[in-house]
Amino acid sequence: RVTVPGATFDFAVRDLSLAEAGRHQIRLAEHEMPGLMSLRREFGEAQPLKGARIAGSLHMTVQTAVLIETLVALGAQVRWASCNIFSTQDEAAAAIVVGTGTPEKPQGVPVFAWKNETLTDYWWTASQILLWPGADQDPELGPNMILDDGGDATLLLHKGVEFEAAGAVPSPTADDPEEYQVILETLRASLATDGQRFTRIAQGIRGVTEETTTGVLRLYQLAETGQLMFPAINVNDSVTKSKFDNKYGIRHSLPDGIMRGTDVLIGGKTAVVCGYGDVGKGAAEAFRGQGARVVVTEVDPINALQAAMDGFQVVRLDEVVSSGDIFITTTGGKDIIMAEDMARMKDKAIVGNVGHFDNELDMAGLAKTPGITKTEIKPQVHEWTFDSGTADERSIIVLSEGRLLNLGNATGHPSFVMSASFTNQVMAQMELFARHGSITGVEYEKQVYVLPKVLDEKVARLHLDALGAHLTELSKSQAEYLGVDVAGPYKADHYRY
Amino acid sequence: RVTVPGATFDFAVRDLSLAEAGRHQIRLAEHEMPGLMSLRREFGEAQPLKGARIAGSLHMTVQTAVLIETLVALGAQVRWASCNIFSTQDEAAAAIVVGTGTPEKPQGVPVFAWKNETLTDYWWTASQILLWPGADQDPELGPNMILDDGGDATLLLHKGVEFEAAGAVPSPTADDPEEYQVILETLRASLATDGQRFTRIAQGIRGVTEETTTGVLRLYQLAETGQLMFPAINVNDSVTKSKFDNKYGIRHSLPDGIMRGTDVLIGGKTAVVCGYGDVGKGAAEAFRGQGARVVVTEVDPINALQAAMDGFQVVRLDEVVSSGDIFITTTGGKDIIMAEDMARMKDKAIVGNVGHFDNELDMAGLAKTPGITKTEIKPQVHEWTFDSGTADERSIIVLSEGRLLNLGNATGHPSFVMSASFTNQVMAQMELFARHGSITGVEYEKQVYVLPKVLDEKVARLHLDALGAHLTELSKSQAEYLGVDVAGPYKADHYRY
Ligand SMILES: NC(=O)c1ccc[n+]([C@@H]2O[C@H](COP(=O)([O-])OP(=O)(O)OC[C@H]3O[C@@H](n4cnc5c(N)ncnc54)[C@H](O)[C@@H]3O)[C@@H](O)[C@H]2O)c1
Ligand SMILES: NC(=O)c1ccc[n+]([C@@H]2O[C@H](COP(=O)([O-])OP(=O)(O)OC[C@H]3O[C@@H](n4cnc5c(N)ncnc54)[C@H](O)[C@@H]3O)[C@@H](O)[C@H]2O)c1
Repeated sequence: RVTVPGATFDFAVRDLSLAEAGRHQIRLAEHEMPGLMSLRREFGEAQPLKGARIAGSLHMTVQTAVLIETLVALGAQVRWASCNIFSTQDEAAAAIVVGTGTPEKPQGVPVFAWKNETLTDYWWTASQILLWPGADQDPELGPNMILDDGGDATLLLHKGVEFEAAGAVPSPTADDPEEYQVILETLRASLATDGQRFTRIAQGIRGVTEETTTGVLRLYQLAETGQLMFPAINVNDSVTKSKFDNKYGIRHSLPDGIMRGTDVLIGGKTAVVCGYGDVGKGAAEAFRGQGARVVVTEVDPINALQAAMDGFQVVRLDEVVSSGDIFITTTGGKDIIMAEDMARMKDKAIVGNVGHFDNELDMAGLAKTPGITKTEIKPQVHEWTFDSGTADERSIIVLSEGRLLNLGNATGHPSFVMSASFTNQVMAQMELFARHGSITGVEYEKQVYVLPKVLDEKVARLHLDALGAHLTELSKSQAEYLGVDVAGPYKADHYRY
Repeated sequence: RVTVPGATFDFAVRDLSLAEAGRHQIRLAEHEMPGLMSLRREFGEAQPLKGARIAGSLHMTVQTAVLIETLVALGAQVRWASCNIFSTQDEAAAAIVVGTGTPEKPQGVPVFAWKNETLTDYWWTASQILLWPGADQDPELGPNMILDDGGDATLLLHKGVEFEAAGAVPSPTADDPEEYQVILETLRASLATDGQRFTRIAQGIRGVTEETTTGVLRLYQLAETGQLMFPAINVNDSVTKSKFDNKYGIRHSLPDGIMRGTDVLIGGKTAVVCGYGDVGKGAAEAFRGQGARVVVTEVDPINALQAAMDGFQVVRLDEVVSSGDIFITTTGGKDIIMAEDMARMKDKAIVGNVGHFDNELDMAGLAKTPGITKTEIKPQVHEWTFDSGTADERSIIVLSEGRLLNLGNATGHPSFVMSASFTNQVMAQMELFARHGSITGVEYEKQVYVLPKVLDEKVARLHLDALGAHLTELSKSQAEYLGVDVAGPYKADHYRY
């Protein structure tokens, strides 16, 4: 899987012969990503990312391909991995590696990603984006920017530095999740050959831009304890990200994943949505749009009241676990649906997660349930049968092994919403790479920032034309009356949209 | 209209014999206002507002009656006016004045409000809530708190102080809106009898709590220029206010007002919603729920993109002005629909405003249109006929003279949403009256504050039971994983809901 004889760089993807298919899809996606394409037009000549060496960890999909080629068009060098073992579209990965070259003589970007990685593969790919050729000898050749989704690249780097400082990687305890054990192994191997590698890399990083809720949460925690090693931009909380990608993206890709995965009619069914944040709101709207009866679980009384006011019954899981037909977690938390819950579900209930980690569902507990069997219906669709072979035999369908089903069972968010998210990403990279905020002039400290509202509004602006939306312009006197500038920003920072 | 022989206090309402009818409605409203009723239970004994003398300016509706009686139940003295010339429900005003007494011997609260005030009446009532009996002699008898909606009480007080400092009230210019001329007259009359009255009052005020967007905007402007004379709490931006009242309230009371006012079927019509903020979102959802085709105008690209993603065509007014059937402004801005626009509308198009001021519609321009005639169909419903008596004759229906039609043509927001808003109001009054934040311990400066998130969550909590919503509780380990406390707050301050 690693490189080909005619290549001048290393990479690891499934099959370069998929490149042409990937390129067709990328071309169509470009049409649906007006924000990114207009950044290429606006900044292509100025090359604001010239000299940027970006380590990118984000679902290696067709949409991400357009992001990567936008970063390159703005002058950056890039190494890329997926941030999820199931989310790579192999044809997109191949097309990005091949670039303007051929499968025999690729001329694109080093990508380390394929669909269905093992956890060991996954953390190997994560380390590959941090380990740039020659950087062990010359740190100037290492990455100087991170583009992260879920914070795994940032985590690996921070843990690496922590263990290098301690001089040793701790032994995993029995309580550690399997995934953490793999991280420890990955770092132990590195430490054995070079005790300062991650420390050197970290010193070169100018900043990280983070895509999603969970990664952002980790960044704020690091910043609070003073451990954050470089400035960070919270892309997730741009309005044109969290209120678009999380909500409208899921509204599209959740039913898409369920349909591709199961071919089961959603209409008329009882859909249980755990969590009514942005992702939950999109999920609930999608199910309602399909004619399902939607019930919601929440821990936050404000979100719970929103669900109620939007017409959804708010329940505790316990009350619906044996009557629901489809269960979807969207919380970003853990232990939302436990193995005991799944054991009480209706025969052939569908269970999936679009939150962040597979620990929203108790997959470990499920596997340990006495008498359970697992049948692969097709990749990412598994039937788990309880009390197999007894009179009580019944089964549930678990999608994508409890990982993000919209990425595992479908192709993730559609291009248009990703264009909004990724336009924020590119502007955030430009901001941090220039050290003093190339667009805004902000001096970034080792803190977590959100993009200023004018840039957020700019992202929205770049997506209106494609939808045929015609914006009204404020007159000068109207703007004065509202106390805003004719060109924006139009709202106070605390405005919620 | 002012007082009755058996009363021990002054007031001005339409007709005290309406009190019984008002009391019935208040009793039913109490059932729909669980937040306020539970504050009475929780704080009734402790009397946290004992000593508070509250000048209240907020639509004198049945819901506000429950608010007023909650403030009184917590120990406050109150004088009240409506913040809109059309919004008073006369029976509610009567019931509040009568209180536990009788129409002959009222024992309630001094209210100065009736439906259909003139502008002169209106600003007289606004001054009455600031002018407490005996306060000219003993400032300790004057108001020490303001509860405002739209900022008129705050405006009157600030202008009064400004002109007293200047020693004179400026003459109105021809450009000043009619309403500002009335304000100037009101203050000129005061200044003629007492050159320090408003200055003395202002010195006694501990703070203002403001209900709505426009009032909050004015407060931030005053704070920025250092003119704000006392601390302010922005109640509007509690999530349980702006994301509930503005959105879910309008979703209810906008179609209610249109239906009561016109009896015209909404389904199938093209409804033009100007502005897609919280109010606009509620308006658009209501129209869609009625089967209308909804189109939206916006100046903010983010809100415009939200409208598009929610499935609404985003247009400029110009493009739909001659094809739309119903036009509703929700912007909080001015000059949204001009007289020339109205002249181009379809025969019998319906035009109304639920933003803030009647200047969202160019009512002054409409009245000045050559050849126009105005026919009162019933109170708050007027037919304006263009080119009257010519072959081109056609007319439009304007609701509530361009003022808030959900209050003018219907009874304003329903009790349940107002309960959430007003529960925030009461807690904000408690906070500021205690000077050091009776609940939070915050030291308030002459700035604008929002209530802390735990209180916002508390408001939501107090409204879940009534809807049969069952909240899930976080386990300790789940809470730790999310980095929050089991009891909340559950979200970062920047979270948008
Ligand atoms: N699948 C995708 O493509 C995709 C896209 C964007 C974000 N995400 C992920 O989805 C998750 C949610 O994102 P979001 O923006 O909606 O976050 P959010 O904070 O807006 O929403 C999560 C909601 O879940 C609720 N919650 C927490 N624990 C709960 C529990 N035990 N039971 C019921 N409800 C609970 C919270 O109160 C909150 O309202 C994050 O982990 C994020 O990284 C996934
Ligand atoms: N009728 C009621 O009962 C009621 C209730 C709550 C609030 N309000 C009032 O409604 C108004 C709006 O409140 P909100 O919370 O929705 O505020 P908001 O700021 O959320 O929404 C107003 C929207 O109008 C847009 N806008 C401004 N000028 C425009 C123009 N010329 N053309 C098109 N769009 C324009 C803004 O971009 C914004 O998105 C405020 O004045 C508020 O005081 C009325």
